[in-house]
Amino acid sequence: MKIGIIGLGTVGEGVLKVLTTERKSIFEKSTMDIEVKYACDLNINREFSFDFDKSILIDDYKKIINDDEIEIVVELIGGETIAKNIIIEAFRAKKSVVTANKALVAKHGVELFQIAKENKVSFLFEAAVGGGIPIVTPLMESLVANTVTEIRGIMNGTSNYILTKMKEEKLSFAEALSLASAKGYAEADPTYDVDGIDAGHKINILASLAYGGSIKFKDMQLSGIRDINSIDIFAANQMNYTIKLIAQSKLLSENSVQISVEPTLVQNSEILAKVDDVYNAIETIGSYTGRTLFYGKGAGMDPTASAVVSDIVRIAARIHIESDYFFNSTKIFDVVDINTIKNSYYIRVSSDFDIEKSPFEIYNEIDSFYIITADDISRNDINEYLKNAQEKLILKIMK
Amino acid sequence: MKIGIIGLGTVGEGVLKVLTTERKSIFEKSTMDIEVKYACDLNINREFSFDFDKSILIDDYKKIINDDEIEIVVELIGGETIAKNIIIEAFRAKKSVVTANKALVAKHGVELFQIAKENKVSFLFEAAVGGGIPIVTPLMESLVANTVTEIRGIMNGTSNYILTKMKEEKLSFAEALSLASAKGYAEADPTYDVDGIDAGHKINILASLAYGGSIKFKDMQLSGIRDINSIDIFAANQMNYTIKLIAQSKLLSENSVQISVEPTLVQNSEILAKVDDVYNAIETIGSYTGRTLFYGKGAGMDPTASAVVSDIVRIAARIHIESDYFFNSTKIFDVVDINTIKNSYYIRVSSDFDIEKSPFEIYNEIDSFYIITADDISRNDINEYLKNAQEKLILKIMK
Repeated sequence: MKIGIIGLGTVGEGVLKVLTTERKSIFEKSTMDIEVKYACDLNINREFSFDFDKSILIDDYKKIINDDEIEIVVELIGGETIAKNIIIEAFRAKKSVVTANKALVAKHGVELFQIAKENKVSFLFEAAVGGGIPIVTPLMESLVANTVTEIRGIMNGTSNYILTKMKEEKLSFAEALSLASAKGYAEADPTYDVDGIDAGHKINILASLAYGGSIKFKDMQLSGIRDINSIDIFAANQMNYTIKLIAQSKLLSENSVQISVEPTLVQNSEILAKVDDVYNAIETIGSYTGRTLFYGKGAGMDPTASAVVSDIVRIAARIHIESDYFFNSTKIFDVVDINTIKNSYYIRVSSDFDIEKSPFEIYNEIDSFYIITADDISRNDINEYLKNAQEKLILKIMK
Repeated sequence: MKIGIIGLGTVGEGVLKVLTTERKSIFEKSTMDIEVKYACDLNINREFSFDFDKSILIDDYKKIINDDEIEIVVELIGGETIAKNIIIEAFRAKKSVVTANKALVAKHGVELFQIAKENKVSFLFEAAVGGGIPIVTPLMESLVANTVTEIRGIMNGTSNYILTKMKEEKLSFAEALSLASAKGYAEADPTYDVDGIDAGHKINILASLAYGGSIKFKDMQLSGIRDINSIDIFAANQMNYTIKLIAQSKLLSENSVQISVEPTLVQNSEILAKVDDVYNAIETIGSYTGRTLFYGKGAGMDPTASAVVSDIVRIAARIHIESDYFFNSTKIFDVVDINTIKNSYYIRVSSDFDIEKSPFEIYNEIDSFYIITADDISRNDINEYLKNAQEKLILKIMK
């Protein structure tokens, strides 16, 4: 089967490398012979990290769309505008599409699925969530008997690396972010990673697949790790917790969901507390399986390429996969305001706060802050008590 | 699509329950309508834990084999002799087979695959390894781009439950085994679970799939947890380790493998050390993904039924799956004697042992035992030094 790759950044180069290097081994395992007919990028005269037949390089993606021999288009340019148009053009040319573009799937998944379905082609995106971790296919197929109501996990490697370094090497957020940048883990603009947007795209995709309907990305409440400082890491550890950026969703009723990304205290005895550095881990609660967890590298050239290639082979092996497998409804879920949800919380508040007028008990005092834990209370209620404090931080405690 | 279930023990009843209860939801997700035409058991007059149309119950499996409408046979009677014959009869009647029978797949997998292939039908067994954890399909399909050389994990829930209780509640092996029996986790004859045989079947299946060849079950060195006592649990914990029954395999060359099941010291910082009670966790090292771990319930009616049903839906959705996907060769691997492999070991030896004549240093003395750790040495070499000791235990330390 002949395919075309559009976009030769890190992931695109990785996919081309895997398909070149492993062509024989993939054929032996799957009986599918995958040939990259064209690989398209605006800059095709650069150096590559491995050898391949350079005659497949082109700089006009239309050549892929218009080639009748090509059955699968691999979209790896990223972004939302051009990528979306290319994918739609590919569907209309009766080609299946594989992508790693999480923002696009999270925001325009339902629309793209509809167009794929109209054109009787497949649209797969295993690499969009969890990098090299098999999660989209297991969720859609292996857990098909289950109603999956809860999903939670660590879905952004960069922020997890920063939190790990803050804890293990006692770095400040700024120092840990610099280290992540130096290692190539953080983009020039780290907003997507550290502010919970990237993890938000991923939990949006998983929740939509699991619940069979869509969740508007703009309805989601996302918070990141910029406000976490070493006091919080230390205080949490004293209480036998580790702070992790947790993406989480729960189906509350037929039409409403709770979904969020926020830094959360995780008990040290939990596996999620042990997920360090750039690793990701995603936990699902299925009606028959109970708790299942998938752990591995959430990003990087090779792991992500591995996931993209698995989708290519799946399409090749089956020719056509029902694109409306889970995205089979036009249902849009209501998203519940997480500030109204009662939970256990960790509170760090400046000592100008009048503890006497609150129901809280002080767990510890560090520098000029009180450390407080409160159970069975909403953020709105906590904020009401803390409204006159100079500085405050409220973090969910995972139970 | 019409199917027949043969064997209505715990797992069989679970599968019938899931397919009855979830028929509509599975159809919505997969567009596959799975109908159980017959469910066969020797004792069909017993009580069941849920309601269903009792007219599907039969006590002669031939009725399933001879029914042209039935496309999938679900074999859940267990054992090796009758089950094997039924599966072969089903293949010859051009029916695909789904099973949870790990002993059968581990010992006769290659032969059964050949017969399935000759008859152009599928043979799937997701439930044979890891219960409700998706592992067989992810390994075969999601990781298709990878060469998976190492697999290791906790694959037997009963022995993991016993080790967890020995550590957490300071029980002896015998006390923890009684508790496991009382909870229904251990069979009347616990040999398969506590002596590493069940975990041996599972690592045999995974290694065969990953390496594309078979490993003779009788070539494998299996040891269980009967010799572990509270001294070992305590000493390991002092050293920041937890003792787990680890099934492990490594591809050493094109034709030889290292494969074993043995109680092993796992560093407390490792995720595997946190896998408690009846949970299982399986870690694979892929050439592109790196480390990936799958965690969940390794046994029980509902999780296992979930895995069986995912295989049924896979066959229904694809009609035919290449049965030689990975078991595509008649290659048989040589198995290396684990006693010759240099590793780090924990040694508990009675103090009659002459420490002066050994290169070992004593880490601790507890009761009348020395606790020793030794690096870069084989079991054969250790045994040579310990040959005159009254009592000894040697456990691998996972690095």
